[in-house]
Amino acid sequence: MSIELRKQLFEQLDQIVLVDPHSHINPLSPASTTLADILGYHYYTELSHSAGMPKDQIEEPGLDPKEKVRRLVENFGPIENTIQYSWFIEFAQKMFGFADERLTTSNWEALYDSAAERMACDDWEETVLRESKLEGVFLTNDFDDPLEGFDTSRYIPCLRTDDLVFHLAKLPVAERLENATGISISGRATLESALDKLFDHFVGKGARACAISLPPDFAPHFVSENRADVAIKNILGKGLEADPNDRHAAANFVFWSLAERCRQHKLPFDLMIGVNRGVYETGVFQGQDLYDSRVSLIQYRQLFNAFREVTFPVSVLASVTNQELVSYSWIFPNVVANGHWWYSNTPAYIEHDLAARLEAIPQTKVIGYYSDMYKLEFGMPKFAMFKRILAKVLAERFVIDRGWSEDRALELGRTVLRGNVESIFQLES
Amino acid sequence: MSIELRKQLFEQLDQIVLVDPHSHINPLSPASTTLADILGYHYYTELSHSAGMPKDQIEEPGLDPKEKVRRLVENFGPIENTIQYSWFIEFAQKMFGFADERLTTSNWEALYDSAAERMACDDWEETVLRESKLEGVFLTNDFDDPLEGFDTSRYIPCLRTDDLVFHLAKLPVAERLENATGISISGRATLESALDKLFDHFVGKGARACAISLPPDFAPHFVSENRADVAIKNILGKGLEADPNDRHAAANFVFWSLAERCRQHKLPFDLMIGVNRGVYETGVFQGQDLYDSRVSLIQYRQLFNAFREVTFPVSVLASVTNQELVSYSWIFPNVVANGHWWYSNTPAYIEHDLAARLEAIPQTKVIGYYSDMYKLEFGMPKFAMFKRILAKVLAERFVIDRGWSEDRALELGRTVLRGNVESIFQLES
Amino acid sequence: MSIELRKQLFEQLDQIVLVDPHSHINPLSPASTTLADILGYHYYTELSHSAGMPKDQIEEPGLDPKEKVRRLVENFGPIENTIQYSWFIEFAQKMFGFADERLTTSNWEALYDSAAERMACDDWEETVLRESKLEGVFLTNDFDDPLEGFDTSRYIPCLRTDDLVFHLAKLPVAERLENATGISISGRATLESALDKLFDHFVGKGARACAISLPPDFAPHFVSENRADVAIKNILGKGLEADPNDRHAAANFVFWSLAERCRQHKLPFDLMIGVNRGVYETGVFQGQDLYDSRVSLIQYRQLFNAFREVTFPVSVLASVTNQELVSYSWIFPNVVANGHWWYSNTPAYIEHDLAARLEAIPQTKVIGYYSDMYKLEFGMPKFAMFKRILAKVLAERFVIDRGWSEDRALELGRTVLRGNVESIFQLES
Repeated sequence: MSIELRKQLFEQLDQIVLVDPHSHINPLSPASTTLADILGYHYYTELSHSAGMPKDQIEEPGLDPKEKVRRLVENFGPIENTIQYSWFIEFAQKMFGFADERLTTSNWEALYDSAAERMACDDWEETVLRESKLEGVFLTNDFDDPLEGFDTSRYIPCLRTDDLVFHLAKLPVAERLENATGISISGRATLESALDKLFDHFVGKGARACAISLPPDFAPHFVSENRADVAIKNILGKGLEADPNDRHAAANFVFWSLAERCRQHKLPFDLMIGVNRGVYETGVFQGQDLYDSRVSLIQYRQLFNAFREVTFPVSVLASVTNQELVSYSWIFPNVVANGHWWYSNTPAYIEHDLAARLEAIPQTKVIGYYSDMYKLEFGMPKFAMFKRILAKVLAERFVIDRGWSEDRALELGRTVLRGNVESIFQLES
Repeated sequence: MSIELRKQLFEQLDQIVLVDPHSHINPLSPASTTLADILGYHYYTELSHSAGMPKDQIEEPGLDPKEKVRRLVENFGPIENTIQYSWFIEFAQKMFGFADERLTTSNWEALYDSAAERMACDDWEETVLRESKLEGVFLTNDFDDPLEGFDTSRYIPCLRTDDLVFHLAKLPVAERLENATGISISGRATLESALDKLFDHFVGKGARACAISLPPDFAPHFVSENRADVAIKNILGKGLEADPNDRHAAANFVFWSLAERCRQHKLPFDLMIGVNRGVYETGVFQGQDLYDSRVSLIQYRQLFNAFREVTFPVSVLASVTNQELVSYSWIFPNVVANGHWWYSNTPAYIEHDLAARLEAIPQTKVIGYYSDMYKLEFGMPKFAMFKRILAKVLAERFVIDRGWSEDRALELGRTVLRGNVESIFQLES
Repeated sequence: MSIELRKQLFEQLDQIVLVDPHSHINPLSPASTTLADILGYHYYTELSHSAGMPKDQIEEPGLDPKEKVRRLVENFGPIENTIQYSWFIEFAQKMFGFADERLTTSNWEALYDSAAERMACDDWEETVLRESKLEGVFLTNDFDDPLEGFDTSRYIPCLRTDDLVFHLAKLPVAERLENATGISISGRATLESALDKLFDHFVGKGARACAISLPPDFAPHFVSENRADVAIKNILGKGLEADPNDRHAAANFVFWSLAERCRQHKLPFDLMIGVNRGVYETGVFQGQDLYDSRVSLIQYRQLFNAFREVTFPVSVLASVTNQELVSYSWIFPNVVANGHWWYSNTPAYIEHDLAARLEAIPQTKVIGYYSDMYKLEFGMPKFAMFKRILAKVLAERFVIDRGWSEDRALELGRTVLRGNVESIFQLES
């Protein structure tokens, strides 16, 4: 009964046209042109490297795309079990008519060539979006992104702020900020003016969120203007040589100032909590970050209390933090559970985390899923994975365990998949 | 097979008459008189507030009960998915003949009125207890509760000690202690005499447990009499201005002294570990507490070793601490796993935590469930939720996975639901 | 469908002849001679003690084996629910023809006697291994073990190093090291020579791994030769009175030196992370250790980066650390997930942890299971428990959820059960 029911629910959920509330798409080049774009996704390079493929074989400068794919495929045996591998196969089957279950040294080249042909069609981007049932995709824009040359109603700007908070002591970051805003930054006041300008620019271009990823030891707190002024002057003057206390104070001040501007502009502030950068020092590109799961949302207590008018869609990196996310979303009106991030974006963790969210957080405060994709081709299989798990949770825990009708379960599914993205990010639909 | 089996097991388990080993029932007013008593439960007010309902609409002074329910119902859409919502619906269906699946602006008033009528009957309390299959309910009594005016064999006293341990520096608490005991408290010795008097009073009135809730950073340790005397004198003299070290030492001394008296009087000492009070500063009444899940039972190492004759029924707030609870109950003879507390009292967490307990803790050391209820009406649906999950775990993990007979599974179910409450709290049955 | 499928997969997996990559078998006395050897396993004594049996009844000096079993059986009621109890029953049913489901005061003696008779047969060891489908078993050898008197291709040596790292300040340990190596240890250089000698001895005898168990607060780091020399001289001179900083530096130096020798000798270094020793001070033998689950693999960041050529099969004590293990194995080429250790070796945790591993770690980097057994009789039921859970995960999460064929699922099962033990520990097969 449950398997058939899951299938039925999935098919219904799969009809819904979605907006993806977080991705790393480059709107000037959203889709892939060869399989190397797809298989170059860090999920594949890092898993292949983890399974023994030397980094220099993957990242050899000037490597021809086809040769890169050949090398990766040769080393794909060890990762065939992973859910990440299944994303590729599912996409290739659906969009390229790939008929096999594994990519091998015998079948990769034909797929490479036929895929390249398909991807060369003018309508490839449209086709992928349509077949993926995506009508909007949130971006992750550097603060100095001009946000030009693309349709901002399809590719929705989102101000990413890691650099501003954590890397302002680096000269190039400060320079980029000056260039982007035309403001010469000499201290607290000018920095705030620059932030104002960034927000005006982003909001003017249709940005619907501000976002940041945060290390596990970050615990934001208020910093006075005077203390901030000293700290900012010191980090601008001394750069990475500045006193760590000044870097710390400046980071907290900038973070707090961003939250204030989110309040002014009614922008949700996506918090992605828990990543340590560069833990595996010599890993492949984007395959070096890990975490310390000993993080608590209690670290955000002062923030959540201080900014009651700002909605914080919160993502946590580790499933062990999910119950805190459930509880904080259950208590704080401004805390919302947001998707299944990175190392928690695998079925066993999604299933456990999602079940807990759907039974204890108000249904209007759960954002089901975002793809986090770098190329459009991953939207379809990643959302499909999520929708299958959502269907499983709805079937097993609502229809069977709680006696809900299928319709009522689907209604809940629609709310977390689509409705909440619209309402929380204030999309006009 | 499994769904039918679960149903059969549930029906058997649901026949057992139970004693609820932890609640917040007021024995002088145990049942509700209107739906406002039921829907005023913090689970509903805090979820509604979290979903956007302003606090002042919920807690307006002098608000008419019916108007309160009207307002809550108007804002109930967002929480219809929650398990807490299902408790209300299940109770209303069973006890008030409510025929719908949702409480709406169209059907609430008729329910309100018919419920008020039912609840006005003289036998409502008896009816609720009988239909809920509860013959005894543990209370949570302030240390200065006279414990009079009710049947202590039905409503079983339990000495709650948070105030004594953590708030003795507050003048009203010290005064209440003096008033309750008739002892003028000037230092360590008189405080101990007062504690002796409290225990004599509670034990004389049939108390069957001592209980306390503890913040995640508490790590109890022995404090010498001399150090305690200094600390207690200082906190009595300086109140909240006292040196934090003195408050800390006094808290630890009182806690240790309570454990000693539990040993003398052979009372189990319920430890409810992990709550931070007032995290959401402006939340609704009883909807402000959260937690830092970074807590470990290793913090109780000294206590568990020092008081081998005291049974400690331990509740943990977060599911991530459950495995420690399983392991500590498996090793320490005096540690017992107790129910599913608060933020872990939702099906996904109960299921995972219960399965782990039933397969690795001696069956005599698992207390299945307590309701934590404030009004009798919640005993039925909360226990029903637990019994369904217990039936699921027994069906899937014992009958199916381990080949047990249904009878053997039911025997285990009975032990954790009823038998252990009797044996651990020494109830004469 | 799923139950039948699980059964089919289990039957296939159960045909595979295995090598057990971690045990505490004494190769000079690998099998039991009476039920007292089996039921004396700490899992039974500690659970019985936890359920109320006094330690002195279990550990009475000179206690007759049969009387010991009689006493344990009398106290077995409370632990009949545990998975540990089921290991004994399953073995007794399969190997001794035990026909009951419980061991009681009425049936134990007949079993005791018939078992003693069976175990007295010359071929008992062979029979147990054959019926358990084990052809090799890794040992846990003290560093001064002569490794003589047994077949090292069946009982594969493994250098256990806890004493060297954490207890070198104890005079008997230093003396054992001098006796084992013939080197008089006076400082850093002579200690390193002694380590070289140990590795030469172990590798010469066919050792296939180095192993250590580590407390939750250990965070290994590099120590310079000069600092190490001072530290080692001080701990050799002052023993347990030495400055804790010196003990700390020496422990880190020895640990780092062991990793260097693993690199030189191409030995995997098993890290078993998270145990606190002696937490329950008066517990039964081997029933005193617990843990603080607040541990992170980030503590091993420097180690994993420094020793890229060393494979680290990592076991974690608590399931809350499993996701970190999944993620670190997914990123670091030299980190491998190893079995389900001790307090995580129960079905609910194995199932959750295994599912997460199989969907996100390259399949070549998951070592399915080790028995951790002290007597051969436990290999069969412990591996059977794991194989049933593996069959469940493969059936539910691969065949059903992901549409895999049974053959493909079995291939994955074989890899983690057998293939990876061979490849990671470089067994010639």
